[in-house]
Amino acid sequence: MEKIYVNTGSRPYYIYIIENNWEPLITALSSCVKSKKFFVICDENVYPLYYPTLDKLLTKHEYEHNVVVIPPGESSKSLECANYLYTEALNAHLDRQSTIIALGGGVVGDISGFIAATYMRGIGFIQIPTTLLAQIDSSIGGKVAVNHPAAKNIIGSFYQPNLVYINVNTLNTLPKREFVGGMAELIKYGYIWDIEFLNWIEKNIDSILSLNTNTLIHAIRRACEIKSHIVERDEKEEGLRVILNFGHTIGHAIEAATNYKTYIHGEAIALGMVYEAKLANRLSLIEQTYVYRLIQLLEKCSLPTKLSGIDSSLLIDKMSLDKKNRGGNIIFILPTGAGAVDLYTDIDNTLLHEVLST
Amino acid sequence: MEKIYVNTGSRPYYIYIIENNWEPLITALSSCVKSKKFFVICDENVYPLYYPTLDKLLTKHEYEHNVVVIPPGESSKSLECANYLYTEALNAHLDRQSTIIALGGGVVGDISGFIAATYMRGIGFIQIPTTLLAQIDSSIGGKVAVNHPAAKNIIGSFYQPNLVYINVNTLNTLPKREFVGGMAELIKYGYIWDIEFLNWIEKNIDSILSLNTNTLIHAIRRACEIKSHIVERDEKEEGLRVILNFGHTIGHAIEAATNYKTYIHGEAIALGMVYEAKLANRLSLIEQTYVYRLIQLLEKCSLPTKLSGIDSSLLIDKMSLDKKNRGGNIIFILPTGAGAVDLYTDIDNTLLHEVLST
Repeated sequence: MEKIYVNTGSRPYYIYIIENNWEPLITALSSCVKSKKFFVICDENVYPLYYPTLDKLLTKHEYEHNVVVIPPGESSKSLECANYLYTEALNAHLDRQSTIIALGGGVVGDISGFIAATYMRGIGFIQIPTTLLAQIDSSIGGKVAVNHPAAKNIIGSFYQPNLVYINVNTLNTLPKREFVGGMAELIKYGYIWDIEFLNWIEKNIDSILSLNTNTLIHAIRRACEIKSHIVERDEKEEGLRVILNFGHTIGHAIEAATNYKTYIHGEAIALGMVYEAKLANRLSLIEQTYVYRLIQLLEKCSLPTKLSGIDSSLLIDKMSLDKKNRGGNIIFILPTGAGAVDLYTDIDNTLLHEVLST
Repeated sequence: MEKIYVNTGSRPYYIYIIENNWEPLITALSSCVKSKKFFVICDENVYPLYYPTLDKLLTKHEYEHNVVVIPPGESSKSLECANYLYTEALNAHLDRQSTIIALGGGVVGDISGFIAATYMRGIGFIQIPTTLLAQIDSSIGGKVAVNHPAAKNIIGSFYQPNLVYINVNTLNTLPKREFVGGMAELIKYGYIWDIEFLNWIEKNIDSILSLNTNTLIHAIRRACEIKSHIVERDEKEEGLRVILNFGHTIGHAIEAATNYKTYIHGEAIALGMVYEAKLANRLSLIEQTYVYRLIQLLEKCSLPTKLSGIDSSLLIDKMSLDKKNRGGNIIFILPTGAGAVDLYTDIDNTLLHEVLST
């Protein structure tokens, strides 16, 4: 069992990283919740896989609990679904002392966190992420949100969980495509922060992809540590935290331009990292070999590395709507050297078109 | 001009209290916003009264701004209206550096604050309250919310404004009924915190009701000071802040039991204070004379002091849904002496029925 302490200003909390065991959840819960009343949110895919175990555990320890099951996928991250969850929370008589448990991937974590942040102006919130993406990225750091039809994650808060409980063995039931989607974010941590971690990932990539438990625990722990460090220093994305968006300016635009249908998030981020690295190379920030290295590792994970059939003008249009933009300028997080990135806002449009067309 | 510094943990800010002057707003804004881009939200009543002046002022100082006008009244505090405002904010290209200005009463302040708290995970927020209730209560302290069909203010956040700008002369255009509604909350501050202030209100009640500017400024300043003190000590209603709810346990139940149609908020709070004071008297916490004193002052304001035609069982049912309740117990803030209140959770149901039927 690994335990990481995340010391954010608004609320400090622990991340537990556990091998195939649910019992430690009870000890962890008892020290971070206000009452024994819980409201579990999960989707239709995760419900049959992990809710029975959680249900049995909570029942055994006499924790009062309800469960609400929502449809899987991004369409559940809507104000309509939020409204449904508020109604169910009221029906379950949740009060300010109660706690919401998000059991599932990024979608469930994001909307559950938004409900926890806004129901009665904020109640308890526990993340039990069951996808690689959620375990190393979305469950940590307090970004919670729902989508607006015109823009993703535009309605949300910074709301830290009281606990993140990662059972790495839940990855055994994760579809392969979802798992490698998470790999894009894992690789990102090497590129933005820790070249040693990138070296380690490259060396252990086969072991990771074959879901070796010890390798997974190491990989997830290091990713969680890096994200925690960054979030502790800049909880509300006013400075440092923006570096987590390497790959995301172009990645988000790719998702938007393809109506979130062609690529899952991690695939779009893989493409985004490749094209942002190419851009960095064209600006002489990094060597060509560093771009190849990224492409090679992503390909090893069967992640896409080449854009096709998306008009560069459409991509640039979509980028101009990014909520991280400042004063109308598109912002980019670009690699500047081994395990380092920096923020750029003055990218020439012609160059951007050129890079996106290669 | 009076200036009160509110030092909340999440964000410190100033309350300006001004006599008929809008120019100081510009100086105040320039020191608390991130960019010159503003999005004004007001209702159809306030729009013709004060938007032209604000528009002229912002234009003169080259502050880019848009305005959105919503229907007046509680029905605008909905997720549907919030969704409309998110759409308009996106259409106006608001970014994270932009600022929302709430120009109006409690409804506009509450929903505008909720949008500011959740649009792109939080942007700038200025309150320009134009009702007495908003000036002395709802604009200060960061409680923002929208309603759920089944429960008021159930969806919200604690989100402090960057500035509260009170021009007391806006009260000249406020309907008399709305003004005296605000008086209930003003009187509440005397009862929960400051017996000297209560004495002062009683002595100056005619001057207040005739809208004498100097008396109003004194009254509003003292009310803002008291609310600020309380909010500074307990931003998220985990302890002390709950005393602000004197009159609100029964008051909210009266509003809910009459479908928010018979009484405006302040009227329901006046009734709530009277019956909670009666309850305190029955519990031997206060003398009968202290209850009469409250009734007399409220009647001087033409506020209701006697319940009629509402079944006490219905009221108790509604009270049991209050979001301040703890572990299923209804909580009451009851007067315990001159200018003092305390929290009670163990009120006997029979006694409550009796008091509500007197």
